[in-house]
Amino acid sequence: MGDVFELRDADAAGRIGALRVPRAKEVVETPALLPVVNPHLQTVEPSRLETEFGAAMCITNGYILHRSDELREAALDRGVHDLLGFSGPIMTDSGSFQLAEYGEIDTTTPDILEFQHRIGADVGTPVDIPTPPDAGRGRGEADLETTTERLAQAEAVETGKMLVSAPIQGSTHLDLRERAARAADSTTLDVFPVGAVVPLLNSYRYAETIEVVRAAKRGLGENRPVHLFGAGHPMTFALCVAAGCDLFDSAAYALYARDDRYLTVRGTEHLADLGSLPCSCPVCVTHTPDELRALAEEARETRLAEHNLHVSFAEMRRIRQAIRRGNLFELVEARARGHPAVLDGYRALLDHAPGLERSDPASKDAFFYLSAESARRPEVLRHHARLERLSLPDASVGEVLLTEGGRNDAFAACWRVVPPFGPFPRALSETYPLTAEAPDRTDAAAHEAAAEGVARLVVANPDSEFALAHRGWPESALALVPERVSLARLDRADRSGTTTAEPTDSYSEDGDADS
Amino acid sequence: MGDVFELRDADAAGRIGALRVPRAKEVVETPALLPVVNPHLQTVEPSRLETEFGAAMCITNGYILHRSDELREAALDRGVHDLLGFSGPIMTDSGSFQLAEYGEIDTTTPDILEFQHRIGADVGTPVDIPTPPDAGRGRGEADLETTTERLAQAEAVETGKMLVSAPIQGSTHLDLRERAARAADSTTLDVFPVGAVVPLLNSYRYAETIEVVRAAKRGLGENRPVHLFGAGHPMTFALCVAAGCDLFDSAAYALYARDDRYLTVRGTEHLADLGSLPCSCPVCVTHTPDELRALAEEARETRLAEHNLHVSFAEMRRIRQAIRRGNLFELVEARARGHPAVLDGYRALLDHAPGLERSDPASKDAFFYLSAESARRPEVLRHHARLERLSLPDASVGEVLLTEGGRNDAFAACWRVVPPFGPFPRALSETYPLTAEAPDRTDAAAHEAAAEGVARLVVANPDSEFALAHRGWPESALALVPERVSLARLDRADRSGTTTAEPTDSYSEDGDADS
Repeated sequence: MGDVFELRDADAAGRIGALRVPRAKEVVETPALLPVVNPHLQTVEPSRLETEFGAAMCITNGYILHRSDELREAALDRGVHDLLGFSGPIMTDSGSFQLAEYGEIDTTTPDILEFQHRIGADVGTPVDIPTPPDAGRGRGEADLETTTERLAQAEAVETGKMLVSAPIQGSTHLDLRERAARAADSTTLDVFPVGAVVPLLNSYRYAETIEVVRAAKRGLGENRPVHLFGAGHPMTFALCVAAGCDLFDSAAYALYARDDRYLTVRGTEHLADLGSLPCSCPVCVTHTPDELRALAEEARETRLAEHNLHVSFAEMRRIRQAIRRGNLFELVEARARGHPAVLDGYRALLDHAPGLERSDPASKDAFFYLSAESARRPEVLRHHARLERLSLPDASVGEVLLTEGGRNDAFAACWRVVPPFGPFPRALSETYPLTAEAPDRTDAAAHEAAAEGVARLVVANPDSEFALAHRGWPESALALVPERVSLARLDRADRSGTTTAEPTDSYSEDGDADS
Repeated sequence: MGDVFELRDADAAGRIGALRVPRAKEVVETPALLPVVNPHLQTVEPSRLETEFGAAMCITNGYILHRSDELREAALDRGVHDLLGFSGPIMTDSGSFQLAEYGEIDTTTPDILEFQHRIGADVGTPVDIPTPPDAGRGRGEADLETTTERLAQAEAVETGKMLVSAPIQGSTHLDLRERAARAADSTTLDVFPVGAVVPLLNSYRYAETIEVVRAAKRGLGENRPVHLFGAGHPMTFALCVAAGCDLFDSAAYALYARDDRYLTVRGTEHLADLGSLPCSCPVCVTHTPDELRALAEEARETRLAEHNLHVSFAEMRRIRQAIRRGNLFELVEARARGHPAVLDGYRALLDHAPGLERSDPASKDAFFYLSAESARRPEVLRHHARLERLSLPDASVGEVLLTEGGRNDAFAACWRVVPPFGPFPRALSETYPLTAEAPDRTDAAAHEAAAEGVARLVVANPDSEFALAHRGWPESALALVPERVSLARLDRADRSGTTTAEPTDSYSEDGDADS
């Protein structure tokens, strides 16, 4: 195995992938959302998930099918696809959730995998042990040992073409998550769910979710499809994709609808609080909030579930589009303003910028500076690292001018300085990310990052002398510039009293190479 | 007149209003989007705008109707509502745009207003002079004099129950815009369009657009409905509403569709660049990009116009919902991450926080700290101003502790400190905005704003002595704390090495009043 997942495009640690699943007419394009189908209770019929909502794949609970005499016989007889009425690939869960909830289940990994195979599941799941967040280290290690044994059992089961998932546990112990991922990666299994994150997600601990995902990613090869098990709220999809998740499943669409809760990419609203419907989906353009509230319970639940599905699938399409266009970070910037916890998750992701830098493409369409967080993106780090490799004249030739203003031929070389990147030779002006668009009203974070760039260049070139001409950087930025750099302050270019990321004279200079 | 607009709710400088228009069965709820109907070319039939898209009002060009013999007679004969097939209120433009484009038109303010009245328009428009941005001051003043004369002419025309708009010009000269607004406000006219901003919007000069709007608002009474003439891109709606605009019109939905351009709240996409449709509207859930591209030109244009309308109307509903819930700033925070120019506009709006503070409600559901910009919101300013009015023990009683940590009875008083607000007595802990939610990973801007709050309190209480216990504020924040405050650094509370906005012990202390 190992050739079931093909990477087609990347942005941040997010990627467009193609998952080859036995039953798929075509491959399943990721990032993908798998709606959860409850065999007992179908708020929206599985066939509609496929035809009206564009679900390429769904997930159902193999253990529930196995436990019910009636469903088990029907599934064995007709196959799970016919039973549910879903023609695309179906992933089946194993009962691990029930194990975590109720402490005991009456199946084993070999049993349940064999059952999943017999009913025609496309992706099966062994019985791993979901260790909750904040579990003691001893419990985390012991549970993980059991999960690792279960993966070994799963490898030994004859499951034909069915893919088998290798869940990654370890609670909130990041080293355990990484170790678990390495163990899973060394198996012959196919899909890699990061498990037991639902309690983190339910309590808005998104930063810790990102830490757990990044730890798992450190232990997995690039070409491993990662499933964030139980993550069904669209407000976190973009962030989690940017951290490296490929597959999501949503029971939320139905569970939230049951409580009159209305999903949006900026959080959850309660139907009772809606004065107008803040959405363009087919449900929201044909109803008012009062009309929805007046519906009988079952119809209301169905309409809300439909809305929740539309919002969730639209967000997945938006994410795939963003990866293709190279602006996934920009989408995460917007989503991070949905809730402080998403911002916290984005800031946690940026703590991993050096790791993201490895997968983030070197060239994209445009870099939008959208907040102080933008100054911490991997493109800025990459530019700073590059500054150590660029050559400069030494002090015997004369001083090097780094400037936010125009050229000055009195210097041995004259480089542009653009926040948040810092200095670069003019020949690079038209290359990504130095073509960045930034607001006229800039911020301290952009200046501080530019100052770090200056420092990197100066320290790497001990035999050169430098002058920096800036448009009024704050003290917090100037403090980062090495003392041996002579400073000059340029007049500010615009009436708002702030500097611009693009010097006003830059257009006449593009393409000139001074060094 | 003057009683045509009733304010029902407010958030930032945005408001829910009710515009009483002669023909409306009910009032028109604002903020509202008026789709532009071109009498010659209807991409989407006006009756569909009403029934399928929820347009409560539309706008058409009275001058185009007047100029065409055929349309003029039909409009006079049947009325503009029957001619267009739109039963709701219709606003009519005067030909000012054509005047600006072609230099001459063959009508006058009395003529065109009389015509608009005779065809049954609900809101008519005089022939003002749209002065473009960056016009010389002399031209701006001369044009404005003419516009002011036209408003006087308009007041004198007998127009029955028809409302009449009083456009506000002045180019990018803010004092002229304010003067123009005062002049318009002193007339008996009803609706107040801010004119000639389209060139600013087309070149992404959103910060200047906001400056122009705020200048106009300074000259207008609170109860004056403000129309941002020609602003039809949904990426700027939330920002412009937060600055105080009530009415928008969109020709963009049709014009963009003609060029295969696809509107989103985060900018414009070209159909050729779409790999998946990033939207949940009825068009986007029933088509793939390839299917749209394969349509014949006219059908493709109609589908794209429908998408553009769905997105635009959904954003208006989202904005009204945000005002009702008191989280319009949070919506603007998200929209500001759509493009650096929107961020620049948001930063320009926050430059006017003292002005916004007057209309922004004192209490809302929740304050979300979502970026460094959140530290500049009017709620923070208001809290800082309040700090000067709170009483404290003087130095003879003992030192006052301001702390991010727990209580300490060794002090004469013990106040909590929460970034970005700063200090407050514990009795206020459960009041807005001090219940703010903030990310665990905080930022320098929040600490600096808290330090400014400390400084306000300390300066206002020269006879008290203060100690500040903080969880590792950066130098840029500590530099703002007056020297006479003794500083102590608390252990950081969480493993991420950052402080939390909510002290870990706060729950046991809520409701205690120490001073």
